[in-house]
Amino acid sequence: MPSITYKATSRKSPGGLAVESESRGFKITMDEPKSVGGTDTGISPVEAVLCALGSCQCIVAAAFAKSKGIEFEDLWVEIEGDLNPAGFLKGAPDVRRGFEEIRFTLHIKTSSDEEKVIDFAEFIQDRCPVGDNLINATPVVVGPVVIE
Amino acid sequence: MPSITYKATSRKSPGGLAVESESRGFKITMDEPKSVGGTDTGISPVEAVLCALGSCQCIVAAAFAKSKGIEFEDLWVEIEGDLNPAGFLKGAPDVRRGFEEIRFTLHIKTSSDEEKVIDFAEFIQDRCPVGDNLINATPVVVGPVVIE
Repeated sequence: MPSITYKATSRKSPGGLAVESESRGFKITMDEPKSVGGTDTGISPVEAVLCALGSCQCIVAAAFAKSKGIEFEDLWVEIEGDLNPAGFLKGAPDVRRGFEEIRFTLHIKTSSDEEKVIDFAEFIQDRCPVGDNLINATPVVVGPVVIE
Repeated sequence: MPSITYKATSRKSPGGLAVESESRGFKITMDEPKSVGGTDTGISPVEAVLCALGSCQCIVAAAFAKSKGIEFEDLWVEIEGDLNPAGFLKGAPDVRRGFEEIRFTLHIKTSSDEEKVIDFAEFIQDRCPVGDNLINATPVVVGPVVIE
């Protein structure tokens, strides 16, 4: 199959730290809490990463449940991540800038066989694109800065 | 500095592929286009990752511009990522599930000195938490599936 190129643009609106992003016509605002200089108008980028991971797990589950013989009434993912602000705020050399660790738990309300559900959960982990991009290093190519 | 634990919950709403996520009281819907079985009510999780990366770059820029002696009138980031759907759809063994490569370009409308702006762009890359979690492998701990 050919690869698909996904695109997004993020733009800093004037003042504060709020940022508007757009992808495929959808808009999303990210910001920071007032305690760190933001105006608290949306989730922060690192929270968005956690939401993306949880959503990706849910979508893979929903997309493949039928073909895997799993029925569920409800499904949710709790995600958390530890981040030491000394990394990005102060540039501390031994502290990474992003999450040091991310953890998640999949909850599923189902009457399907337990062993089958456990296999299904492992299948979801294997197929989740966002999980892959976090767990495994992803090449990020930085273009030259464009001075407008 | 002590680490901060960020949290989010993603929940599969009935039908389709739309997922509601919540973090710190903020809600966000992610979905897939109709062409792949979704109802197209929001960005997809992989698009959310691109938006998170772009927003993170913008927020780091805005937060540190003053202390770095940079003034800008406008700032935006264009981000794109290539993903081969054979990885998550078919489990193709040699195709990764997530983005194979992410690229971005920072645009800045500024009258600040060019060399200083280039240094500033490098500083942003160094400090961006989301960039770190993509470029470098991130430990993701998967808890046991909870059957409700």
